[in-house]
Amino acid sequence: MPSTSTSTTTSVFETRESQVRSYCREWPAVFTSAQGVYQYAEDGSRYIDFFSGAGALNYGHNHPELKRHLIDYLAGDGVTHSLDTYTVAKREFLETFEEVVLAPRGLDYVVQFPGPTGTNSVETALKIARKCTGRQDVVSFTNAFHGMTLGSLAVTGNSMKRAGAGTPLYHSSTAPYDDYFDGETPDFMWLERTWSDSGSGLDLPAAVIVETVQGEGGLKAARGVWLRELAALCRRHDVLLIVDDVQAGCGRTGRFFSFEEAGIVPDIVCLSKSISGYGLPMSLTLMRRDLDQWEPGEHNGTFRGHNPAFVTATAALRTFWTDGAIEQNVAARAHQLRDGLQRIIARSDGATLRGRGLLAGVAFEDVEVAGRIQAAAFERGLLVETSGPSGEVVKVMPALTITEAEMAEGLEILVDAASAVLRRTDGTADAAPTVAADREPAFAG
Amino acid sequence: MPSTSTSTTTSVFETRESQVRSYCREWPAVFTSAQGVYQYAEDGSRYIDFFSGAGALNYGHNHPELKRHLIDYLAGDGVTHSLDTYTVAKREFLETFEEVVLAPRGLDYVVQFPGPTGTNSVETALKIARKCTGRQDVVSFTNAFHGMTLGSLAVTGNSMKRAGAGTPLYHSSTAPYDDYFDGETPDFMWLERTWSDSGSGLDLPAAVIVETVQGEGGLKAARGVWLRELAALCRRHDVLLIVDDVQAGCGRTGRFFSFEEAGIVPDIVCLSKSISGYGLPMSLTLMRRDLDQWEPGEHNGTFRGHNPAFVTATAALRTFWTDGAIEQNVAARAHQLRDGLQRIIARSDGATLRGRGLLAGVAFEDVEVAGRIQAAAFERGLLVETSGPSGEVVKVMPALTITEAEMAEGLEILVDAASAVLRRTDGTADAAPTVAADREPAFAG
Amino acid sequence: MPSTSTSTTTSVFETRESQVRSYCREWPAVFTSAQGVYQYAEDGSRYIDFFSGAGALNYGHNHPELKRHLIDYLAGDGVTHSLDTYTVAKREFLETFEEVVLAPRGLDYVVQFPGPTGTNSVETALKIARKCTGRQDVVSFTNAFHGMTLGSLAVTGNSMKRAGAGTPLYHSSTAPYDDYFDGETPDFMWLERTWSDSGSGLDLPAAVIVETVQGEGGLKAARGVWLRELAALCRRHDVLLIVDDVQAGCGRTGRFFSFEEAGIVPDIVCLSKSISGYGLPMSLTLMRRDLDQWEPGEHNGTFRGHNPAFVTATAALRTFWTDGAIEQNVAARAHQLRDGLQRIIARSDGATLRGRGLLAGVAFEDVEVAGRIQAAAFERGLLVETSGPSGEVVKVMPALTITEAEMAEGLEILVDAASAVLRRTDGTADAAPTVAADREPAFAG
Amino acid sequence: MPSTSTSTTTSVFETRESQVRSYCREWPAVFTSAQGVYQYAEDGSRYIDFFSGAGALNYGHNHPELKRHLIDYLAGDGVTHSLDTYTVAKREFLETFEEVVLAPRGLDYVVQFPGPTGTNSVETALKIARKCTGRQDVVSFTNAFHGMTLGSLAVTGNSMKRAGAGTPLYHSSTAPYDDYFDGETPDFMWLERTWSDSGSGLDLPAAVIVETVQGEGGLKAARGVWLRELAALCRRHDVLLIVDDVQAGCGRTGRFFSFEEAGIVPDIVCLSKSISGYGLPMSLTLMRRDLDQWEPGEHNGTFRGHNPAFVTATAALRTFWTDGAIEQNVAARAHQLRDGLQRIIARSDGATLRGRGLLAGVAFEDVEVAGRIQAAAFERGLLVETSGPSGEVVKVMPALTITEAEMAEGLEILVDAASAVLRRTDGTADAAPTVAADREPAFAG
Repeated sequence: MPSTSTSTTTSVFETRESQVRSYCREWPAVFTSAQGVYQYAEDGSRYIDFFSGAGALNYGHNHPELKRHLIDYLAGDGVTHSLDTYTVAKREFLETFEEVVLAPRGLDYVVQFPGPTGTNSVETALKIARKCTGRQDVVSFTNAFHGMTLGSLAVTGNSMKRAGAGTPLYHSSTAPYDDYFDGETPDFMWLERTWSDSGSGLDLPAAVIVETVQGEGGLKAARGVWLRELAALCRRHDVLLIVDDVQAGCGRTGRFFSFEEAGIVPDIVCLSKSISGYGLPMSLTLMRRDLDQWEPGEHNGTFRGHNPAFVTATAALRTFWTDGAIEQNVAARAHQLRDGLQRIIARSDGATLRGRGLLAGVAFEDVEVAGRIQAAAFERGLLVETSGPSGEVVKVMPALTITEAEMAEGLEILVDAASAVLRRTDGTADAAPTVAADREPAFAG
Repeated sequence: MPSTSTSTTTSVFETRESQVRSYCREWPAVFTSAQGVYQYAEDGSRYIDFFSGAGALNYGHNHPELKRHLIDYLAGDGVTHSLDTYTVAKREFLETFEEVVLAPRGLDYVVQFPGPTGTNSVETALKIARKCTGRQDVVSFTNAFHGMTLGSLAVTGNSMKRAGAGTPLYHSSTAPYDDYFDGETPDFMWLERTWSDSGSGLDLPAAVIVETVQGEGGLKAARGVWLRELAALCRRHDVLLIVDDVQAGCGRTGRFFSFEEAGIVPDIVCLSKSISGYGLPMSLTLMRRDLDQWEPGEHNGTFRGHNPAFVTATAALRTFWTDGAIEQNVAARAHQLRDGLQRIIARSDGATLRGRGLLAGVAFEDVEVAGRIQAAAFERGLLVETSGPSGEVVKVMPALTITEAEMAEGLEILVDAASAVLRRTDGTADAAPTVAADREPAFAG
Repeated sequence: MPSTSTSTTTSVFETRESQVRSYCREWPAVFTSAQGVYQYAEDGSRYIDFFSGAGALNYGHNHPELKRHLIDYLAGDGVTHSLDTYTVAKREFLETFEEVVLAPRGLDYVVQFPGPTGTNSVETALKIARKCTGRQDVVSFTNAFHGMTLGSLAVTGNSMKRAGAGTPLYHSSTAPYDDYFDGETPDFMWLERTWSDSGSGLDLPAAVIVETVQGEGGLKAARGVWLRELAALCRRHDVLLIVDDVQAGCGRTGRFFSFEEAGIVPDIVCLSKSISGYGLPMSLTLMRRDLDQWEPGEHNGTFRGHNPAFVTATAALRTFWTDGAIEQNVAARAHQLRDGLQRIIARSDGATLRGRGLLAGVAFEDVEVAGRIQAAAFERGLLVETSGPSGEVVKVMPALTITEAEMAEGLEILVDAASAVLRRTDGTADAAPTVAADREPAFAG
Repeated sequence: MPSTSTSTTTSVFETRESQVRSYCREWPAVFTSAQGVYQYAEDGSRYIDFFSGAGALNYGHNHPELKRHLIDYLAGDGVTHSLDTYTVAKREFLETFEEVVLAPRGLDYVVQFPGPTGTNSVETALKIARKCTGRQDVVSFTNAFHGMTLGSLAVTGNSMKRAGAGTPLYHSSTAPYDDYFDGETPDFMWLERTWSDSGSGLDLPAAVIVETVQGEGGLKAARGVWLRELAALCRRHDVLLIVDDVQAGCGRTGRFFSFEEAGIVPDIVCLSKSISGYGLPMSLTLMRRDLDQWEPGEHNGTFRGHNPAFVTATAALRTFWTDGAIEQNVAARAHQLRDGLQRIIARSDGATLRGRGLLAGVAFEDVEVAGRIQAAAFERGLLVETSGPSGEVVKVMPALTITEAEMAEGLEILVDAASAVLRRTDGTADAAPTVAADREPAFAG
């Protein structure tokens, strides 16, 4: 059972760490260890993880097979840090990525290691798109999230985060994401028309950057037809299409790339989060071969050669992506998840299902509800996050390797937490004892 | 002896990796393992590492004590990825950093984990400086290097790298670094005067960002008096002083922070590269307590909680910074290094010594020479890099833990390589057989 | 009959004046004098002026009453140039403007003399809007035209003109003008939604700038309901509404201000072109009293005190705006004009009527037609311009003082020119003799 | 004697005109008429004008010869407003400008009419410089003044005026004007070095824009050798040199162009203020023939064809610039002026002479003094302005046609006013009666 006396154990965080810290405010536990879908705090509490490091832990925590390769590599004094020199670990990753990911999908992307974070990958994509087209503007979508460094922030929607720049943001313009107007208007009417109208005032952009599912922006999922129309529009106007697959990629929505289902081939793809498979910092920028117009060293960065991450990335691709097992599990678990979420939706007027695959959730009309469910779930031993501009969506993002039983266990807690919150919201009494009873089995300690 | 038939083993790099790759072009070996100051290639060659991951490997490769802690943590399923939730590993790091680094130096910085790379830390520093002052402009210095994402790139000097943005760069202005005019003008005349002159056209900046030694810009080292005057100037005008200690910090110049020797206390400090001690991605932004004006989550990033790096960082601080041994070794080895470099300088008219501590090198008048010495050193089993806008400086950056014998061994190769190149440059015959003989001992295979 | 041998008389223009010259390419006459709606070239040709200096000559050329005041003032050594010192001429203008324009309409605008051109007025409006709100972005509309200096150009739609900046343009975003999507979407859906959505990525703007009729952008006229909704939207979100009435104001659409008919009261109004009444450079920026937050001298300019223009401006207000005669004439002539334009529309499939009041025209589906009609009209002694991003609209803009007979005379030529062009376009023979006969009466010389 | 009861006569200014008004605050008279160097207020006061419309009235007020041509043109219904169509008045101006100004100086500039104000001319120069070079940045100098629209403001130094933009200003960087460091540093050390250093962080600019005398920035006058070195530097680096001759040109410093004395030929020249000769709005942008890369209409503006100004401009060139009389008068009067200013300097420790030709003044160490002298001079019937970032310079700028006697009369008042102020500043009694006596003769009314 989670301790409530965190004052002594968290004090250095409060006295020494910046106020910018955030998740720890919702989940004030001090975590020690983790395995699979479970995370453990130092007070002995166990939590089911329906958060997965915001998508960086698609194969769960500390997967044994990946861990084995990682420890073997470290124990054998494999090169840890290599900048962009050649290493055996990098070669194995490149060969595996080619063999397991690119070749079977008929993709011929050039691979860049732009620095080990998602925003490094996005910045790199924006740079190469501008450099290759000679144009400045990049179109992003309402409620997009692409990162916190200056270039990525300019194509990010959230106004609080944008204000953090302390300076105006440049060379980005915003277009409505799929269904932004609830189907009231034809898709891409605005971009199609303004790009064709030399008097529109909208300069033709270098690129469009899009997430197929908006992980931070409220789990809006673009329809396949919308993505195909977007790709066709970009092609007609010679505008590059960048898919930011940092959160939705690496199998999160079923296929390895989240855009496969739609049948499109972006010009540039950003990957990070789960590409290492183990939560280690790593990212890739994939680009059409003719866009690889960099001078040697024109983009660089100290941690481009993080070999332990290459090792786990290679192991993850070999372990999970050489047969169809993981795709089948995602499909089955996504079905199970939707069923569970429908139980919550049934209890709240106006609540709607959001997302795709194992990146799904429930949007509530009352924007306070999702945060309360997050808190109630935490009390009950479940880590689940909110999403959306007002945090109005409960966002569920378990490991892709979660079992049916684990999913059931987590959903049980989530439904219970939601019920408790929705009862309170309705003014009905919160049956606290029931909750406590429900919660007990969720904790090991 | 290094193999020359790299065609088969490096082919996937050539066919699949982006043209942007750079170090591998100068050092076309495929590295497998590393220990201390030695790095090994798959053809059996051994290299002495006078490069140290561009400063990310201050304690050498795979230091046994750090490795032990790292493997123990991983083996015990310690939390790997935690975003900004609380973890035991993070608490231990914060407590250790406070106890070993901050407290003894009387510093009360708030610590932010801004994402695991140097450019994340710089972007964060620029954001908070702009946010807190309400001003946009940031002054950087000639030949500065601060990173490749859009905000950091705007305060970076190199024109080739700047052009990679594909867009104009904003809100930065450039001032002459120490000795840019060879002492011809009083220091800070320009900034002092324009900041005091309401008609100058130079808007008062939010901050000045400075490296105490310009690692990429040619190993120019600022004098202590120059840094003190800069700090005083900033204080007089209420301009924030940011020290980018990504490359020169973590003991590289002797003390933990490179600015300690000058006796200044910056308002914001950027740390990365060797902060993890093991070459793992990690960075910090340290800021004056009153500057910590972030909203929770106003800056974020997936890999802010890279716990394996926290573990090795804590171990590194405990291993190396609780007594004065490493500072003494840096001082002694820096002396030894300077003596070695003087032997090279003696052979080349106009060559000059650059740098400070174990971040030192030789600048040549003929800008081609340094690159040739790098190549000749590589042939002889030594990894040494060039620096400066035209690559005119041979840059030596061994592990801080290097022994006297290892340093001597490396310097012997470097002097030999330089001699061979300078003889060629002089038109005298290159005594090739001698070189081959010299080189042999450097290789294990 | 216009001379075709302009080579000798225009040679200094060709050898000495910049290639940027434009109207002279369509109308290669050398004009000498003008009176009312007639303009005379040095070869003796007479032209009916359906162009009116692009709206700067709303009361025709050299109106006798205004001329009398102007010459009297000059002959009496009235102060010509006064910067922003007080002069009797300026006081008379201010008093008259207050009495004749502001008071009867219940408007309490503060009046700024920002420099004597439309773009000065727009730049001033943008500056004060940004200064008062502390926000940067300004929303303008598709196909807007607001001027050629950097601030105004950023809110102008035409891509060729934007490219002339030679630099990216900042802090402007574009929204669809009324009917941009032919009624397919609800008005202001985009602005309403994104301004209310903190995650949209569209920062709340300082202001919206709008023309009620797009003089350069193709004579699109906004409906009253659209303008009222826009004004209400801005008020709800505390965004300033700027009406650029440089071209459509000063009676061009009937009332003194073009926005009166819609019943809205903008926060800021830009006036220029016909405010002097005589084609002399002059402009005003009108602003809500609480927005007048300038420091003395914070905006300045040499020709803010162009007293001859103040004199003619005062005379024009007294002559034309103290009774309803000019409004009645505009209404009657606009009716007559529409009837004439309908005769052209009847001859061309897909041609549509555009504009409002005496700022009206015909848009053709074939974008080449309007230019050909302009040329044919010039040959026949009529000055009429094209408008729109592809010059696809014949734009008719006679003096507001034009008589019924003069209008009939001009329309006769225009219809004839259009007929000739449309016949040619249809492949039918051009009845040249008839044209010549038609045209003769149009010329005095 | 000036009335002190301005309350009734200036009330509409106070109730209706924007707070931005400025000169009227220092000179609260209501001016009616003017002739030569005298200006008259409605209370009968006469003022000697040592201000000349900030340089727009180089030939004095309402010069009879120019007036004659102007009234004749207006009376004869000459075309007043012509946009950029050909007119006889424009041809005569172009031919005269070529014959009287360009040809005798061996200059082959293309002439653009960019709109009738100085800032229009500067914006045009910046646009064409960026367009032709493909570069963005423009270097301007400390304390420069180039105009108030967004592009010109970005190259203007004054911080109060810059803040009026309400937005950051782009693509400008500042370099020290001649003598900014009192000769302590070699000229152009900074530009020369940074433009040659690819790592400097200063991107090579499109252009440098310079005033030969800083009319608003404190009457600093660049030495000829400095201007020649600047021109040579620009040529070596293929950077365009723009001379903003809006205030210092048209004979103000002796020759027609202020840069002639230095023997340089700028790539682009901005002219305005006195080019019409009569205080009428007009401006020119002169450019090297190969820089005239405009598309027709790529830059435009309503008041480019202000024919009354062309008429007076032609008359001014023919009246004043076909013999050397005016240059001789400027030389003689400048000598007389310097002698007078020396009398003031002699009374104030640290006061220094500033300027060149008839654009000269005195800088005081106590920044309050110049404003007090302006006020005391006004009381005594003399209009004289202040200049400099803190208004620390008394700036004298009489008509170039001023006679020896008129100059003596004005100087007498100025010296008297200065004496009174400096006595007060010294704490000695102000001999008020003497002042009153002195002043009397200055007034006609």
